[in-house]
Amino acid sequence: MQTPPSDDDWLAAAARLAARGRPLSRPNPAVGCLIVSNGRVAGRGWTREGGRPHAEAMALDQAGDAAKGADIYVTLEPCAHLSDRGPACADLLAAAGPARVIVGVEDPDPRTAGAGIARLRAAGIEVRSLACKAGEDTLAGYLARARLGRPHVTLKLAMSLDGCIALADGTSRWITGPGARAHVHARRARADAILVGGGTWRKDQPKLDVRLPGLEARSPRRVVLSRDTAPHGVEAVCTPDAIAALEGVQYLYVEGGAQTAAAFLTADLVDRIEVYRAPIVIGDGLRAIAGMDIGDLSETHGRWQAVEQAQLGSDAFTAYRRTR
Amino acid sequence: MQTPPSDDDWLAAAARLAARGRPLSRPNPAVGCLIVSNGRVAGRGWTREGGRPHAEAMALDQAGDAAKGADIYVTLEPCAHLSDRGPACADLLAAAGPARVIVGVEDPDPRTAGAGIARLRAAGIEVRSLACKAGEDTLAGYLARARLGRPHVTLKLAMSLDGCIALADGTSRWITGPGARAHVHARRARADAILVGGGTWRKDQPKLDVRLPGLEARSPRRVVLSRDTAPHGVEAVCTPDAIAALEGVQYLYVEGGAQTAAAFLTADLVDRIEVYRAPIVIGDGLRAIAGMDIGDLSETHGRWQAVEQAQLGSDAFTAYRRTR
Repeated sequence: MQTPPSDDDWLAAAARLAARGRPLSRPNPAVGCLIVSNGRVAGRGWTREGGRPHAEAMALDQAGDAAKGADIYVTLEPCAHLSDRGPACADLLAAAGPARVIVGVEDPDPRTAGAGIARLRAAGIEVRSLACKAGEDTLAGYLARARLGRPHVTLKLAMSLDGCIALADGTSRWITGPGARAHVHARRARADAILVGGGTWRKDQPKLDVRLPGLEARSPRRVVLSRDTAPHGVEAVCTPDAIAALEGVQYLYVEGGAQTAAAFLTADLVDRIEVYRAPIVIGDGLRAIAGMDIGDLSETHGRWQAVEQAQLGSDAFTAYRRTR
Repeated sequence: MQTPPSDDDWLAAAARLAARGRPLSRPNPAVGCLIVSNGRVAGRGWTREGGRPHAEAMALDQAGDAAKGADIYVTLEPCAHLSDRGPACADLLAAAGPARVIVGVEDPDPRTAGAGIARLRAAGIEVRSLACKAGEDTLAGYLARARLGRPHVTLKLAMSLDGCIALADGTSRWITGPGARAHVHARRARADAILVGGGTWRKDQPKLDVRLPGLEARSPRRVVLSRDTAPHGVEAVCTPDAIAALEGVQYLYVEGGAQTAAAFLTADLVDRIEVYRAPIVIGDGLRAIAGMDIGDLSETHGRWQAVEQAQLGSDAFTAYRRTR
């Protein structure tokens, strides 16, 4: 007989549902919800386009009466505040009469912030609040906004095995293969905005769009790091810190160039580095990251942790997370 | 019921035995031999220090009468030539009366070169000759000597995730952690010689020895790429091509610096690149590899293939093989 899934396993499954909501759930966080009755999934939900219905409402709608006495897994604490767009999820869940509600991450939104859990407990429902890593990951943009007051920032680098992003003359087509490039477009489609430096914008005139069949409409907002007036169809921020003012942006995808990468890293505004490494050697090509005034090697250690690996054709993908 | 091991599986196991022989088997190649009687291992052998006994002799000695009617797996074609150090392995094997001999790699040595297999067949023994990748890997140094007329060359690089081997001021202690550094010492212990460039030699005065408890005596020969007279206790080669003249060296381990790495790569004398990548970002530090006069990115593709990955503490190890 198999071991039954643990609460952590079910929450991880709910987090995979949550990922379906990103990025179209904006301005709401992408939440996932699973209703488990007698060991079987009775309802599944994730935050829909524009934020409604919420994940809990969708899952309860599927489960119907099966929610009574069930275990309900939800990646983010159910909202407790009233909205003219629908009832509070804490009330909906309480009315459905589950045995337990298992929460991945407590909501930092001051309108909820523990009130959702309190309301469920007041209704006699057992609530477990786990500090769920999978839940944190799928809510990274929302949590960065709430905790750090700015979007979650991913820095993308595509390089040779020896760390060059182009030949010395600037030629960069192509370092990586079609699989890695399609992966980049899929990442763009999950971002709320893409940012490049003003130099890269002027030199390469990058389209920064999503060129994947069926996802063309997902091309995110485009942002340039520049003190100049923004070109038509593009927003400008004059310093990395100014990304805090990018209204509605939870996930920002930074694609370079080297000065921009160094500016974001120096300001400690990068949460994730995604590297695509081609099995090629260049030698004295261009670098991914400009000077960062590092005084001592010890400063560089303990800040990054490899958290994801994938093989994309002959290229290797590695994601590093900023440890905070 | 389990599927019984295939001939390839047994040869791969013999190749793991062969690895025990390296590098002390020199001047002989490190060969592995497995004797399998009725599905069970009856004898195991690998080339011993100084080349004798051969792997086949050791395995036959263990197996005794069980070799009769058995399957004998040997990574390299058994030798057919007489030596005053012992009888030819093809004759020893024929006398033992196995049912089959399965050979990983045919011996390019002109004194054997098919004669070992022919002699076994003449004795009525079935011989299968597989082009065995695991066998080729454990014989890489021997085969490079025979086919390319020079040692097998591994280039080692220890770098940040963005491809820097030191801060801009040259500080490189430490990029990688203790696990990666111990791994490097274990690699040195398996090499016949270590090479660095003259600049690195003069600047860093590297010890290039094996600092692992119990393996201190395995410190290999030290070679400098330099047009000057070699320092005491060190050999000199004036160009990368001149490594062909390093008598008795099957495995050469090149540790930099950037000019030396570029010189070996430009001469297409690198068979394997071993990269240790620390999860740190440096930006404008020193590079692993100097200029290589690459005219077009297409020249760089299709030459390297990632063949091995390992996690060493927080550092990632990746080995790339030159595809030829």
